Amino acid sequence: MSTQPGGAKVLQQHAGKDATKIFKSLHPPGTLQKALPAGSLVGVIDVDDAAKLGGGKDDEEQRIELARASLRNVDTIVCLDEFEEVAQSILSQMAASYYGTGCRFSLAFPETEQTLRDERESWQRIRFRPRVMRKMRHIDSRTTFLGMPQPVPFFIAPAGLARLGHPDGELNIARGAAAHDVVQVVSSGASASVDEIFGAKSPEQIMFWQFYVPSDRVLAEKKLRHAIELGAMAIFVTADVPVLGKRERDLKLKARSQNYEHPIAAQWKAAGASDWNAVKNRGISDIPDTAHIDANLCWDDIAWIRQRAPGIPIVVKGVGCVEDVELAAQYGADGVVLSTHGGRQLDGARAPIDVLVEVRRRNPALLKQIEVYIDGGVRRGTDVVKALCLGARGVGLGRPILYAQSAYGAAGVSKALQILEEEVQMAMRLLGANTVADLRPEMVEVSSPERWVPT
Amino acid sequence: MSTQPGGAKVLQQHAGKDATKIFKSLHPPGTLQKALPAGSLVGVIDVDDAAKLGGGKDDEEQRIELARASLRNVDTIVCLDEFEEVAQSILSQMAASYYGTGCRFSLAFPETEQTLRDERESWQRIRFRPRVMRKMRHIDSRTTFLGMPQPVPFFIAPAGLARLGHPDGELNIARGAAAHDVVQVVSSGASASVDEIFGAKSPEQIMFWQFYVPSDRVLAEKKLRHAIELGAMAIFVTADVPVLGKRERDLKLKARSQNYEHPIAAQWKAAGASDWNAVKNRGISDIPDTAHIDANLCWDDIAWIRQRAPGIPIVVKGVGCVEDVELAAQYGADGVVLSTHGGRQLDGARAPIDVLVEVRRRNPALLKQIEVYIDGGVRRGTDVVKALCLGARGVGLGRPILYAQSAYGAAGVSKALQILEEEVQMAMRLLGANTVADLRPEMVEVSSPERWVPT
Amino acid sequence: MSTQPGGAKVLQQHAGKDATKIFKSLHPPGTLQKALPAGSLVGVIDVDDAAKLGGGKDDEEQRIELARASLRNVDTIVCLDEFEEVAQSILSQMAASYYGTGCRFSLAFPETEQTLRDERESWQRIRFRPRVMRKMRHIDSRTTFLGMPQPVPFFIAPAGLARLGHPDGELNIARGAAAHDVVQVVSSGASASVDEIFGAKSPEQIMFWQFYVPSDRVLAEKKLRHAIELGAMAIFVTADVPVLGKRERDLKLKARSQNYEHPIAAQWKAAGASDWNAVKNRGISDIPDTAHIDANLCWDDIAWIRQRAPGIPIVVKGVGCVEDVELAAQYGADGVVLSTHGGRQLDGARAPIDVLVEVRRRNPALLKQIEVYIDGGVRRGTDVVKALCLGARGVGLGRPILYAQSAYGAAGVSKALQILEEEVQMAMRLLGANTVADLRPEMVEVSSPERWVPT
Amino acid sequence: MSTQPGGAKVLQQHAGKDATKIFKSLHPPGTLQKALPAGSLVGVIDVDDAAKLGGGKDDEEQRIELARASLRNVDTIVCLDEFEEVAQSILSQMAASYYGTGCRFSLAFPETEQTLRDERESWQRIRFRPRVMRKMRHIDSRTTFLGMPQPVPFFIAPAGLARLGHPDGELNIARGAAAHDVVQVVSSGASASVDEIFGAKSPEQIMFWQFYVPSDRVLAEKKLRHAIELGAMAIFVTADVPVLGKRERDLKLKARSQNYEHPIAAQWKAAGASDWNAVKNRGISDIPDTAHIDANLCWDDIAWIRQRAPGIPIVVKGVGCVEDVELAAQYGADGVVLSTHGGRQLDGARAPIDVLVEVRRRNPALLKQIEVYIDGGVRRGTDVVKALCLGARGVGLGRPILYAQSAYGAAGVSKALQILEEEVQMAMRLLGANTVADLRPEMVEVSSPERWVPT
Repeated sequence: MSTQPGGAKVLQQHAGKDATKIFKSLHPPGTLQKALPAGSLVGVIDVDDAAKLGGGKDDEEQRIELARASLRNVDTIVCLDEFEEVAQSILSQMAASYYGTGCRFSLAFPETEQTLRDERESWQRIRFRPRVMRKMRHIDSRTTFLGMPQPVPFFIAPAGLARLGHPDGELNIARGAAAHDVVQVVSSGASASVDEIFGAKSPEQIMFWQFYVPSDRVLAEKKLRHAIELGAMAIFVTADVPVLGKRERDLKLKARSQNYEHPIAAQWKAAGASDWNAVKNRGISDIPDTAHIDANLCWDDIAWIRQRAPGIPIVVKGVGCVEDVELAAQYGADGVVLSTHGGRQLDGARAPIDVLVEVRRRNPALLKQIEVYIDGGVRRGTDVVKALCLGARGVGLGRPILYAQSAYGAAGVSKALQILEEEVQMAMRLLGANTVADLRPEMVEVSSPERWVPT
Repeated sequence: MSTQPGGAKVLQQHAGKDATKIFKSLHPPGTLQKALPAGSLVGVIDVDDAAKLGGGKDDEEQRIELARASLRNVDTIVCLDEFEEVAQSILSQMAASYYGTGCRFSLAFPETEQTLRDERESWQRIRFRPRVMRKMRHIDSRTTFLGMPQPVPFFIAPAGLARLGHPDGELNIARGAAAHDVVQVVSSGASASVDEIFGAKSPEQIMFWQFYVPSDRVLAEKKLRHAIELGAMAIFVTADVPVLGKRERDLKLKARSQNYEHPIAAQWKAAGASDWNAVKNRGISDIPDTAHIDANLCWDDIAWIRQRAPGIPIVVKGVGCVEDVELAAQYGADGVVLSTHGGRQLDGARAPIDVLVEVRRRNPALLKQIEVYIDGGVRRGTDVVKALCLGARGVGLGRPILYAQSAYGAAGVSKALQILEEEVQMAMRLLGANTVADLRPEMVEVSSPERWVPT
Repeated sequence: MSTQPGGAKVLQQHAGKDATKIFKSLHPPGTLQKALPAGSLVGVIDVDDAAKLGGGKDDEEQRIELARASLRNVDTIVCLDEFEEVAQSILSQMAASYYGTGCRFSLAFPETEQTLRDERESWQRIRFRPRVMRKMRHIDSRTTFLGMPQPVPFFIAPAGLARLGHPDGELNIARGAAAHDVVQVVSSGASASVDEIFGAKSPEQIMFWQFYVPSDRVLAEKKLRHAIELGAMAIFVTADVPVLGKRERDLKLKARSQNYEHPIAAQWKAAGASDWNAVKNRGISDIPDTAHIDANLCWDDIAWIRQRAPGIPIVVKGVGCVEDVELAAQYGADGVVLSTHGGRQLDGARAPIDVLVEVRRRNPALLKQIEVYIDGGVRRGTDVVKALCLGARGVGLGRPILYAQSAYGAAGVSKALQILEEEVQMAMRLLGANTVADLRPEMVEVSSPERWVPT
Repeated sequence: MSTQPGGAKVLQQHAGKDATKIFKSLHPPGTLQKALPAGSLVGVIDVDDAAKLGGGKDDEEQRIELARASLRNVDTIVCLDEFEEVAQSILSQMAASYYGTGCRFSLAFPETEQTLRDERESWQRIRFRPRVMRKMRHIDSRTTFLGMPQPVPFFIAPAGLARLGHPDGELNIARGAAAHDVVQVVSSGASASVDEIFGAKSPEQIMFWQFYVPSDRVLAEKKLRHAIELGAMAIFVTADVPVLGKRERDLKLKARSQNYEHPIAAQWKAAGASDWNAVKNRGISDIPDTAHIDANLCWDDIAWIRQRAPGIPIVVKGVGCVEDVELAAQYGADGVVLSTHGGRQLDGARAPIDVLVEVRRRNPALLKQIEVYIDGGVRRGTDVVKALCLGARGVGLGRPILYAQSAYGAAGVSKALQILEEEVQMAMRLLGANTVADLRPEMVEVSSPERWVPT
């Protein structure tokens, strides 16, 4: 027992209780079979008996059960923001913190989580210049992503640990996405295995795969080839996580609860990762070369992946300035995602829509050389349409989907996508654009304080 | 009964109660006579008896009755904002929601209803550069609209369903407008019929007519000719409603109340409209060609209207950028209204005063070719004067008039117009402008963050 | 009694009570003797008896008396803002409203009183660029106003009805000003007579006189000559009151209290004015030529005054743009006061410091041709120093002095002036300016959104 | 007793109680021995007896003792802001006020303490332009200050009276700094003596010394030579205190408590200073030439210090515009600190990061001629990295260190420095900078309203 891969804390945190649920919410199936030493299985426990012995539902579980029982009907949801409102009542503290956290959080000092706030606010710095009297009976919101036809110009961004919010987790997302032919970018940090998730897809359903490249390139190649075999039709290489950002809501929750184990820490440790805390000398900090994610990822790795994924489009996710969009094009990537990783990595980074504005200002031709995707703070069809006016090919949504599946499972995901599709089409109609191609840069006005990039 | 044009919900909502009041607040007179199948009239009910049987006043009606009894005297109203304050107490939830709603609303996420808020705030981005020592004993606020003399440079914008707030609805507006020789633009979405409203006007009173062009052009022509016969002296063609915007306050109210029927939905259904929900394929959305409002309205329709309304000025209402003002002039319209439809259509659209600033910056000569009107968030005489300095010919008010008539009937409308007239004249006097012609662009300063229109 | 010059309301408001106090707070001495018809004096009343008969102190008087009894010591006041805090407790509602009001006020709509708020905030748009290592042992804050030596570069702006706050009213101001050799600009709307105020000055004390030019030029000349005889050493001609602004706090107070009489209305009526409400036709508004203040004041009147006040400097008060500063210089005025009349006249007018920035941007040479004074929202020595850096000769304070005298009489005024003097000298020392001449434009940075004056 | 150097108030404030603690928190050791006249020592008191006689713990001491007993573990602190939160509970009112105060403070008028607020907010006007795919396994945060190697690019800014928060005061700081090889700039206003502080340093530990130059240059030279003998490896000459700023939180506390003695006043008086209140004539204000700090400090004094401190780098602390950075370079200083003295001197001065932006805009070459340090409002590793991108060599922290040592002593200081080091390295890794030299200006974007410096 002392060799529990998740560490002693996890055991203390759940001692005497049925840990089945939390274990499943963090680990892909098969983890136990693979990790449990021979002879560790000492017997089968009757969960109901355990409950009677005091190992039953704790306060939080009771609170959640009660809230679930009185959840309002999913049909009454009017907009994506409401999924977040509703989900707050049925999420565990750990899930609420993990889903919600940006890089900083302090009640006393409201200037924290700068990027997280800025992302939400940034969409309002773009205003529409609508056109009228344009024969708007017919709207066609179809487009293509990396050559693949899409009914709508948005997709589900990779977001991990969906099972923290709902037992079916990522499978809910897969099912909801199928109902609307919307692309799901499968997270490498998913609480369901890639086999499970790709296994849940319908024959026609398009799924992309988010790739956290491990330091161990043998393992990396194995993972990559496996995802392609499973049917991944594009690879989203995560470029903005050489190290996991400082997510203070999680850290504060941990500080308040001695036995709290960060959900990713538990997952990584189970996977044998050793880089949760970096080894440090005074002023010199290294990440070991056995790290779960390769901190030494570089532009040449695009070619490395290309060789192992012939014919599969590659998209670099987590780009934050025009120079790196240019490099991505130069190194042969098929696309980039302008993203701050949900405001969870470098606090102080610009909102992605500001980066898109920069691309359009400084190098608009680039938008024809490489497909530019964007995510971060998107909640409305109008947000999607604003990004498309400025030249984005598609817009990703993360948190709203997590909240929708947490509260309502696949039905929530489906409802969210339906709302968004209707909003996008309405925004196009009211803006005077019959097709996605009609969404022109001059249909928006960018309002922002003077900004200066020193040189 | 199963063929009730308003749908089954309306029946459930009002079952067992006297539905006379809500019916009248939504439908022009004669609706029942026209719509009720022969044989449906089964008898006459005694309303007082019905009340005794439990079908009497509900909680909301009692709340409103009480509030009306203690309404402060209309003479104590100091400014237009106060009408809104006062009206909150005497409006039904449905009316408060319908009058107040913009395109988005969420208590938890204050960034919603962007355009609605922006409209109110936008007036403060204009500051005055007043002139002194200019002999200001005499002020003349007279102007002309489309060649017709006006005592003041403002008008009553078309705003529907006035009977939701007061039994006399649009007739109150007509009577109040008459008392001040102020133009009323009669709404096509009025709860009183055009016959009633035009019938209420005094011989000299000038009324314009807002035209929602139906898909059925035979019907369209019939409506147009009827309005002209009734005395409409200008046609305001609504250009910004190819589809009804997403008005979330209404939708949320509906979500909370199973039997709630959106007031416009009820009205449209009664009129036989089939486009409340558009028919959709995946990514392709069409509005049926039987739609209540023609989504395929286009600039050529100006000529179509002109032919059927010879000698009647035509104004395109709902314009949101300088390019469309130019097109309106080019296609022979006599005027445009810069408007966001009260922040109820495309959320994210710019405040109309920002559009006026754009016209003045980019093509000031245009302001001499076509009359430019404006509405949205106007509450003060100073707002009116700011718009005139920038080149507007007239300024429309919607919500304040609805609130004033809801609380006080015609007396409220009259008081509102009197306040506004005095405020306009005071602002002119303090600014150093004896006449409307003296209101010059250099009398204002436009303060706004840097804005960039990509090209 | 029906001919009471203040109107019937005043009588109703104070019926059965001792009206001595409110009468004295509004009228200069001698008013009763002049205005009371022969035979109206029917006897002498014993005030104490009246109190016993129920005509004694009302709730408000009791509240004030109690607050006065526990007033903190004037020596504990740290900054000018505190005078306002303290005064709130001891002012009558009428006084608090009259002193505090700007042109708009609505609790529900925080965007009102735009200019009043903007004035306070505007000072923070100016930031210092301080210089160090400059031998700052010695500071000399002396300057001249219109050629007259001053120990400090600030003065007491004219502000009326000081007796609303304290029985000694303007005399308190005169005494406090004397203690610090600070110029008082005597208000024409003072509740003490000019004779009283000038009578209270010490031989060396410099007082200026604010001139509201009456329509009746015979009366005007009489008033002007009288002020000069009394010792007025400069004339501040009020240019921004062709009509009294719409001061909504006062109007709302009046709306809540049937018998409320606006303090200025009472004062003007007593003086025989007939222009409280202007005579109006539809769209045409005139002020009668018997008006208390001449709405037809014009630039030629500078010469008219000059002839009647030879050798006396003339300053035009209430200027709001660079063009009018230029006209003032051209018409021979010795100075101007950039002012919005405390945010009480044209709401939406720019903050005076923004006008000063405009003068410096567009025509800095003008600052050498004519002395430019400024008031509005000044609360700190740093505010004074900011204005001087930008080219102002002197800075006026209104409300803080009214609040200080209301709470503490002459001692309050003296304390306020002492605080301000110390703050000015400290700001100079920390900024690196030994003398007023060392306060240079490059010592400040003006931060403001882009502003555009259309032409 | 009447000759108590701290004045009679101090005696009244602590009469009948054990004043040992407050005395020690203000005075370096040896003060009593030096200052107490012969014969004043009348006996030795038993502190426990005194407590029994009513001279025991007052309410505040009890409140603090209780809070200290339940202080959360220092290991649970997640970010520097939390030290301030925690410290509020265990600080005396005097300490909280002295540590927290800026130049203005008024609850009723939130625009006060402009510079203090602006400093905190200013860091958010800088946004990152991060680079990805750059091989970030290895991070090296080492740099040099004035030629001396440093593990991290930040230092502990001089901040006085550390003993107000914790009995060990500055010694805590020295010990915490030693644990992380971080430079401490020893405050001249320290509550521990320079001998004590330098005495506490480890052999390798680098300490700099903040120099408040006294008017008495014999004394000045003596102090300077003594600090160098003790091991000061650089002299930070304080340039921004010709007079102590108006710190209103302290003044308000004093106003509320008759016997309150400002902590610096007490300290200065004990040191024989006579300039707490400057001698003033009307409009002319002088500081006596016996002042504790020489108000006549000037650029020539750099040479004066250089002669007496051969080979020791000199840094001018408190610079607020590019012109003074240029002068510092010209007069041979080795560095400057852009600083507003924690928002405690000239309110309205720009945030230091704005000054750094100015230097980079106007004279970027200067950043190679002279080392530019910065402090003010720094709370995050990202703040440090932003300053370095713009050209700062090092970043100082004041208040966070005071709060950390107040709550946790040396362990708090150590924890604070550890957090900051990890944050700096994480920010570098996420930004794409392996070394300090890789932090380039184009990695940030400066967002700020248009600013204009008049000339």
